[in-house]
Parts: sequence; structure tokens; C-alpha cells
Amino acid sequence: MNNFVYETPTKVYFGEDEELKVGELIKAYEPKKVLIHYGGGSAVKSGLLDRVKKSLDDQGIAHVELGGVVANPELKLVREGIALCQKEGVDFVLAVGGGSVLDSSKDIANGVANPDVDVWDFSLGKATPVKTLNKAAILTLAAAGSEMSNSCVITNQDTGEKRGYGCTANRMNFAIENPKLTYTVNPYQTACGAVDIAMHTIERYFCPGEDTYLTDAIAEAVIKSVMKAGKDCLKNPEDYVARANMMWASSLAHNGLTQCGRAFLLTVHQFEHEVSGMYPEVAHGAGLAALWCSWARYVYTANIPRWLQYAKNVWNLDIDFEHPEETVLKAIDLQEEYYKSIGMPTNLKSLGVKEESLEKLALDCSRNKTRTLIGFKPLAYDDMLAIYKMAYDA
Amino acid sequence: MNNFVYETPTKVYFGEDEELKVGELIKAYEPKKVLIHYGGGSAVKSGLLDRVKKSLDDQGIAHVELGGVVANPELKLVREGIALCQKEGVDFVLAVGGGSVLDSSKDIANGVANPDVDVWDFSLGKATPVKTLNKAAILTLAAAGSEMSNSCVITNQDTGEKRGYGCTANRMNFAIENPKLTYTVNPYQTACGAVDIAMHTIERYFCPGEDTYLTDAIAEAVIKSVMKAGKDCLKNPEDYVARANMMWASSLAHNGLTQCGRAFLLTVHQFEHEVSGMYPEVAHGAGLAALWCSWARYVYTANIPRWLQYAKNVWNLDIDFEHPEETVLKAIDLQEEYYKSIGMPTNLKSLGVKEESLEKLALDCSRNKTRTLIGFKPLAYDDMLAIYKMAYDA
Repeated sequence: MNNFVYETPTKVYFGEDEELKVGELIKAYEPKKVLIHYGGGSAVKSGLLDRVKKSLDDQGIAHVELGGVVANPELKLVREGIALCQKEGVDFVLAVGGGSVLDSSKDIANGVANPDVDVWDFSLGKATPVKTLNKAAILTLAAAGSEMSNSCVITNQDTGEKRGYGCTANRMNFAIENPKLTYTVNPYQTACGAVDIAMHTIERYFCPGEDTYLTDAIAEAVIKSVMKAGKDCLKNPEDYVARANMMWASSLAHNGLTQCGRAFLLTVHQFEHEVSGMYPEVAHGAGLAALWCSWARYVYTANIPRWLQYAKNVWNLDIDFEHPEETVLKAIDLQEEYYKSIGMPTNLKSLGVKEESLEKLALDCSRNKTRTLIGFKPLAYDDMLAIYKMAYDA
Repeated sequence: MNNFVYETPTKVYFGEDEELKVGELIKAYEPKKVLIHYGGGSAVKSGLLDRVKKSLDDQGIAHVELGGVVANPELKLVREGIALCQKEGVDFVLAVGGGSVLDSSKDIANGVANPDVDVWDFSLGKATPVKTLNKAAILTLAAAGSEMSNSCVITNQDTGEKRGYGCTANRMNFAIENPKLTYTVNPYQTACGAVDIAMHTIERYFCPGEDTYLTDAIAEAVIKSVMKAGKDCLKNPEDYVARANMMWASSLAHNGLTQCGRAFLLTVHQFEHEVSGMYPEVAHGAGLAALWCSWARYVYTANIPRWLQYAKNVWNLDIDFEHPEETVLKAIDLQEEYYKSIGMPTNLKSLGVKEESLEKLALDCSRNKTRTLIGFKPLAYDDMLAIYKMAYDA
């Protein structure tokens, strides 16, 4: 077991109607002015934004707002948000939405608090935010786990780059999670969320490390629970129990709990960021589903016992000790069947990725052949290209 | 699933040699003076205390010290610590030890920060600390989970009362967990720790609630992991993997993770506090082991499906649907056998409890017949007496 630091400062208020407390909760931070940051129409149409503004008004909290965050949130809007906060004297950012809105909010808060740094430098790893604004989230989508994570992923449309960075400044002060706010999430986005959550855990599970059996068992619990919850949400979008277990899984899958004692690198996420960076219409969860099985089939031989544990504990397979690879491949097939069963793609072609893009994807993912991803198995440019090719029409 | 608040602000530094960072970590809080609070000789003899003082000295941090914390930490020493902190201008408390030292430190920090309140009123529930001092822990015993919990249990020797209270002020700012610091914990205390950790989780698992399948699966992961780790620690006290998994389980079992969405009341803990309050030589974990099986056999009929889930998922039992109670009782037997296998008592008599104490225990636990414990099954004085009697020579 590796040494590790565990840090989950975000306080979570979970359950029905919890968003009605938001004004009261923000009041404790004594903000001068709050930026309410959100995405498209759903937070407006559903009346959520009005409830939020009323809650702030009731506490006499001044606020401005900025909507328009899109999936794969854009640097351009972040810059707009920073300028607005500076002009208006905003010192608290409230995100109302899903992971994209939360990430955009984090980046705005970091940008405002560190005016001497260009905010894109955080994404490029050239600088780390030493300060940030207080910030909170009202979550409307169970997927990215940004509500408890230290992660922030932003896309620079000018360069086509999609880059994530992690740091303590990216932790929300608090997050409000009302499962009912996800009832209106459509089946495709719901399935994408289930994949993203499962993958946050599965990717950590296959990071290098050993002797972490408590962490492993917790990870297996999260993987199995979210796969059940995702399926149940599709059967009945207003199944509170399913929506609630999925939402809570979203937070636990990405807050650090499932990586304690293991190395940390989300390899397939790196592969996917290139895909949705180049094809912005690709939903992150769908991209992950399209890539994972090919990655798995390419790398599994590097540590077969680990995959046998996954086969046994996640898929309840009996291990065929004479042909252990068959057990592993069966488990990967089952994961693939699960993705199909919830309407997710399992190859890139069906996502609209062009075959002629594959080399460019591998070049970008390898940072022009200068980066090797050190995960379950080290992967350089040639490996990346092989995996993208396998995933093309898997 | 009930609404819930999840709050785990304590930052954990986990692994070998992490205690060497303590001076640097405390420095960030810019303390005027630190109280180093500890127990008996082991922290001194092992050289740990010297390493800690050197780390503080290296950072130029002033400190005073107070040792002498005993198992079931006493109000008298808490008062002494408060007076010392006031006299010396201490504004940071560093606990070096196990749960008793940590709880004593929490109470001192709360007492110093709230000088207008008598500190025992916190334990009696007559007041809640609104402020506290910054505080941290270097853990030397995997058991109580106080390093991440919001709980503090103090004994008033003058009245024989042992009382716990929970609040945000009781959270440590950070905790250092080096599994090697527990290598010297003797087999009996190691086993007591395993029971305490398992019971923090099992008690939450049997609190009222439903549809919390993610929380349930995580709880099952913790229960199974700590039972394995406890046994392995007894086989080889210097098994790093076992000590590490047990230490991490100690933190997760009591930080709130395993109760999300369920009601919260540690019923058997309440029973046990009376026993070790009256018989201070009784180790908390041993008291829990001596009581739990009798409690389980008394209450299980209130919700048999819950016990069948426990039988299946924790003990891998096949459910006998024609005779489900037999499956439940078999699972309780297996838990009892586990306790015996690690040298724990499973009745009160073997702990030295006198038969004539049983009525007094039930009277105290029921607060002179005025308190009903609302847990898995509501238990009033008559139930308490019945359970204490069952546990006497179970």
C-alpha cells in the first residue's frame, strides 16, 4: 500500500429539497456578491434558478448570473466569467448544473483569485492556483463527480485542447445533491453518467498498487452499485432510490476514496479527452464506453491476477485457473454487454469518429510522441494508436 | 434513503514516516504554542514523542506537554489540560496516541475555546461547543476512529458517568496515520480495536433506513476488511498490510461514510459505555464483543430481511428461505465465533462484571427508566435488563 493523502473538505447536503437551504448556507461565508453560473435552459425552465435566486434574495445576498456553459466547458466563457466577477466584485461562485458548469465555476474562481496568472496556464500545468474564491454547487447531473473532486477539465476551442488539472483549490466548499433534480436527465445522458461514474472507479481500480484490499472492496461496492443504479434509472427516470444511489456514487467515485493507497492516473480518460476535444459533440461518458473495452483487451496481460479479482468480485465469475485469460476476457465482455444494455457505444465509429482521425488522436494523446501514460501498463504513441484503432470498430 | 449531511474535513496523511512532517504541517496554522497531549509510557519509550518534539523544534514551534491520559479518558485530566493551555497561551492541541488521547484532546480544545461553559456540559448535552482550537492527531492505535470522527467520549470519575457527544468542533484538522506505529500494540488491544472498528460499522448497518445499497455495500466492505486485517495482525504484529488496512478501516468506520442515508444511533455502544463506566478496567472493544451477540439475538426479529442481507453479504451464507431465522442465527454465531477466534470475550461474566451490577447497568443505560434507545428496535429499561442478563453468561 502506497502512502497517501486523503482530503475531502467538501460538505455535502444530500436529499430532497436541500437546495432550498442554499441562501442560508452561502450566508455563512458573508459574501459581497455571488455569481450564479449555469448552463443552458433546463435550470431556467425547471424553475430551479428561480428557487435559487429567491433563496439568496431571502437572505439579502447580492448576485449576478452567467449562463451558457456547454458540455466540454469552454475557456472563452471562463474568461468572460472572470471579467464579470472582477467588474462586479464577486467573491463567491455558485454553480447550478452538472460537471461542466462546476468545472467552469472552479476555473472562474481560480482565475479571479489569481489575477496575475493566465487561467489557461492552470490547465496546461504551468501554474497551480494558490488561492481561490469560496464556491459551492447545486448538482443537477450525476456523472462527473466534480462536486467533491479536486479536478477541473476545460476545453480551449481555439486550439482544440481539452485539459484537466487537479488541486486543492478545486474543492467546492459545499455541494447540494437533490436526486430529484436529475429526474429530467434524458436516458442517453443518464447512461453517460453511469459510465463516467463507473469509469472513475474502474480506472482507479486498475492503477498500479497492491495490498489495498479495503480500498478495493469499496471500489467494487461503488462499481456494482452504480451499474445497478444506472440501469434502474433508465427503467424509471423517477426512481428516487436509483437516482439517489447514482448521485452519491458520483461523488464517492471521484473524491479520492477509491484510490487510497494506489497510484493515480485515469488513462482511459486521457484517451477520451482527445476524442471529445476533437469531436465536441461526443459526450464524455459515451467516449469512455467506446474506448474502455479496447484498452482493457490491450493491457490486461500486464497483471492477470488483478483482472481475475475484478472478474470474481465485480462480475461474480468463477475463475478458470487453467485458462485464466478466458475468465478475464469474459469479464471484459460482460462490461461491454453492460454498456450496450444501457445504450452506450462500444466503438469510436458509432460515435462519428473518422478513421483518418486516429493518428491525430494518438499524436495528441502522446503530446506528439513525448508523453507515455504510466498507468496499469505504460502506453506510448504506438500503443495509443493501436488502442484507438482497436476501438474504432470494436 | 434519508436526507443526510456528509462532512469529513479532516485531512489524513497516511503511511510510513508521515509523522516526521508534523512540525511542517502544524506550522501552516501559525500557532503561538502547541500542547502535546499523550497517554502513558509507550509514546515516550518508543521515541515517538522525541521525534514529534524534534519536528516541532525544527520549525521553531513552542510547545508544552501533558501526559497521563488513561483508557476511558477522565474529565479530571481534561480540566487540568484546559488550565494548562490557559496558563501557557496554547492555541493548538496535538494528540499523540489512541482514541482516548484524541478524545481528551478534543475536549481540552473545546474547553479552552469556550471558557464560559463548563466542559462537562458538552458531554451532558447541555451545551455544544461553537468554537474550538485547531487540533491534530498522530495515531498510535487503530480502534476508536476518533481521528476522523465528530465524537468525543469522556468519563467523569466522580459520578461514574461515561458520556459521548458529537459535533463539528470535534473534527481534527488533520490526522497522521503511520501503520508502523501500531506494531507494538499487544494482541488483546489489537483484537479490541478490530472489534471496535467492526462495531462502528455493524452498528450503523443495523440502524433504521432503507434503499441505501451503496452505503450498505461500502459498510460490508469495511466489516469484511477489518475482520481479515484484525486476524492477520494477530498472526504477525508487524504485517504492514494488515496494520495499514486496519488503520484505514478505523478512520472510515467512524467518519460518517457508512451511515449515509440511514438513521444514526450506536445502540450497543450505549450499552457498553455503562459497563466500562462502572468497570473502568474493561476495554471498550472487549465490552462491545461481550454484548453484541446478545443484543443481536434479542432484536433480530424486528427486521429479518436486513439480517439476511448481512448473513449473505458479510458471511457468504446461502439463505434458507424456508427457515430464514436459522440463517440469521447462524450469521450471529459466526460473528461470535470470530470474536472468540481473536481472543475476545462474548459474555460479561468473563469480563469480571458482577451479576448484581446488571440492574444498575440497565438503570443507568435507561437514565433511570427515562430513556428508550431508538435503534434497530426501540429498547427501554426492561429490554436493556433482558439484554444485560442474556449477555452475562452467554
